[in-house]
Amino acid sequence: MFKQLSRFVSYCFFAITSIAHAQTPALNVVEIGSFHVGGRLVEISNKPVKSVVFSPGSAPALIDPNGKYLVEQMYVQYFTPQILKSKLPILLWHGGGLTGVTYETTPDGREGWQQFFIRNGWKTYVSDAVERGRSGWASPDIWPSEPQFLTVENPWSRFRIGSGAWSDDPAKRVQFQGSLFPAEGYLNFMRQIVPRWTTTDAATIKAYTELVDKVCPCVVLVHSQGGMFGQRVAQARPDKVKALVLVEPAGFGDPDQAASLKNTPVLEIYGDFIDQDSRWPNIRKTQMDLNKKYIEAGGSVDVINLPEIGIKGNSHMMMMDRNNMQIAQLINDWLVRKGFAEK
Amino acid sequence: MFKQLSRFVSYCFFAITSIAHAQTPALNVVEIGSFHVGGRLVEISNKPVKSVVFSPGSAPALIDPNGKYLVEQMYVQYFTPQILKSKLPILLWHGGGLTGVTYETTPDGREGWQQFFIRNGWKTYVSDAVERGRSGWASPDIWPSEPQFLTVENPWSRFRIGSGAWSDDPAKRVQFQGSLFPAEGYLNFMRQIVPRWTTTDAATIKAYTELVDKVCPCVVLVHSQGGMFGQRVAQARPDKVKALVLVEPAGFGDPDQAASLKNTPVLEIYGDFIDQDSRWPNIRKTQMDLNKKYIEAGGSVDVINLPEIGIKGNSHMMMMDRNNMQIAQLINDWLVRKGFAEK
Repeated sequence: MFKQLSRFVSYCFFAITSIAHAQTPALNVVEIGSFHVGGRLVEISNKPVKSVVFSPGSAPALIDPNGKYLVEQMYVQYFTPQILKSKLPILLWHGGGLTGVTYETTPDGREGWQQFFIRNGWKTYVSDAVERGRSGWASPDIWPSEPQFLTVENPWSRFRIGSGAWSDDPAKRVQFQGSLFPAEGYLNFMRQIVPRWTTTDAATIKAYTELVDKVCPCVVLVHSQGGMFGQRVAQARPDKVKALVLVEPAGFGDPDQAASLKNTPVLEIYGDFIDQDSRWPNIRKTQMDLNKKYIEAGGSVDVINLPEIGIKGNSHMMMMDRNNMQIAQLINDWLVRKGFAEK
Repeated sequence: MFKQLSRFVSYCFFAITSIAHAQTPALNVVEIGSFHVGGRLVEISNKPVKSVVFSPGSAPALIDPNGKYLVEQMYVQYFTPQILKSKLPILLWHGGGLTGVTYETTPDGREGWQQFFIRNGWKTYVSDAVERGRSGWASPDIWPSEPQFLTVENPWSRFRIGSGAWSDDPAKRVQFQGSLFPAEGYLNFMRQIVPRWTTTDAATIKAYTELVDKVCPCVVLVHSQGGMFGQRVAQARPDKVKALVLVEPAGFGDPDQAASLKNTPVLEIYGDFIDQDSRWPNIRKTQMDLNKKYIEAGGSVDVINLPEIGIKGNSHMMMMDRNNMQIAQLINDWLVRKGFAEK
């Protein structure tokens, strides 16, 4: 594994040098669409009928809450560029408390990885996981657990942008020295946050599996909480998920199913400021231990700790950091090197 | 008004005849982006700290629910075609219990009005109203009212697809004779439904006004509940909203501000099966009464009752019906006729 990683590090340095002069390929989208996958019907009974005025001035409507609800479906939007450089589509799966918007833009209004992959010739699917964004969510009668709401103070340190909590007083805000997160747009990032449940993992894996069955073979790129969804769905559909890119995975595959990934190369990318964080050293170690099982079973895993190859300052939200395109380029170069796309 | 409407009806017949032979223009998108507008910070205090495991296997995180929350922001996605045929963008605002997905696809997987307007040379903005989809929603500590959840049975008659309730037994389902709603995909439509509050109108109008301030002058096209948002925002920003298309508006403008719309031409479109509905005759009458005030104040209003011009079978969700492109073409032709776009 060391030799493999070492070769890869040299490759990365080459890639970094070469992209400094690369031009941004044109965006030229010839197909846009969306759909929902999955979901199940749940019946609710014995509740009283309600009269609801949905818009002021309109007649009240009688709403009978008894009946069937469709829940746990998942929203997916896709974009096809005019010139494809990969026979496979790439699926971008976001992390917890967020939606597909993660990949669409940055807090300072630059393009995200969605546009990068479209520009680089990938048919690109961006989804909102079950319960989030355009996927909708179910009533307390159906999901017994409470949703979690994030304060704007919390992600500042949890996503390794800076130490302590965010403050609306700039003088009290401590960003890590050299941080590449565009902190001037921090509240734009917070506008993307949506409530989250902690008990919908099985439903989410089911919906992602349905998505993979519908549109793959493919490459799956995931972030954070999506680490679990990506690895477990790839383990369930190893013939469909041809490559797996894990960006700071905070959830994991099934160690007992390690062999199922032996033909699915995995790339893992970690940012900066991990050693000074209370949670991230352990989260990374869990994945590194799992990697050993993947490799023992004949699999291929490349790990990039960005600071080790000279790329410093990345937060947990590296797809939004100032050098987001540099990291996307590393990923694309890896996919080209693995034979999944043309340069 | 009668003369104006009569001229318009003749025009429509001409348009219907001419589009039968029209080719679909190519989709050629050179810019895709998204952003959130608006939102406000709300402080919550005196709640206990919670330990939450966000992903199975990851270390628990201490979540302090006390602090500031950013709520009532609104998500917007936009697409720029290579060749613009209008100097103005068009903003597509959906109805209650739904998101921008309303305009992205149909229950049977055809393209929606989003793609139609892009193909016809409009920079197109599709948003998720406050509380819905990618806009996120606030905790019960911040919004005191309960969200409403729709059963899959309910919209069948409320959206004038058929009589009675939807049943999962096809033999018990009664679709209106001649209905153009693609009922075979009814559950796909239900997958788009999201919970809704009935007390967020002011916040929604505020966010839409911020959107208009950011990206207009423009044309605003709204559906159903959006009737209120479109008319009230246009009344607040008559210099920015240059034309208003109301598709079965179920919410209304301020009658006392009728004069503010005197320079904003309005097009209103109604589908079929209204007379046999318990609510729609009244909802339409409220708008017709308001139209009189608009016209008395010097404004211009064109009303199309589709069955009166020979287009029968449309539900409340005409942007998803089998003839959705025919209706989009009527709208585009009206905008061309009013001078807002090239043919």
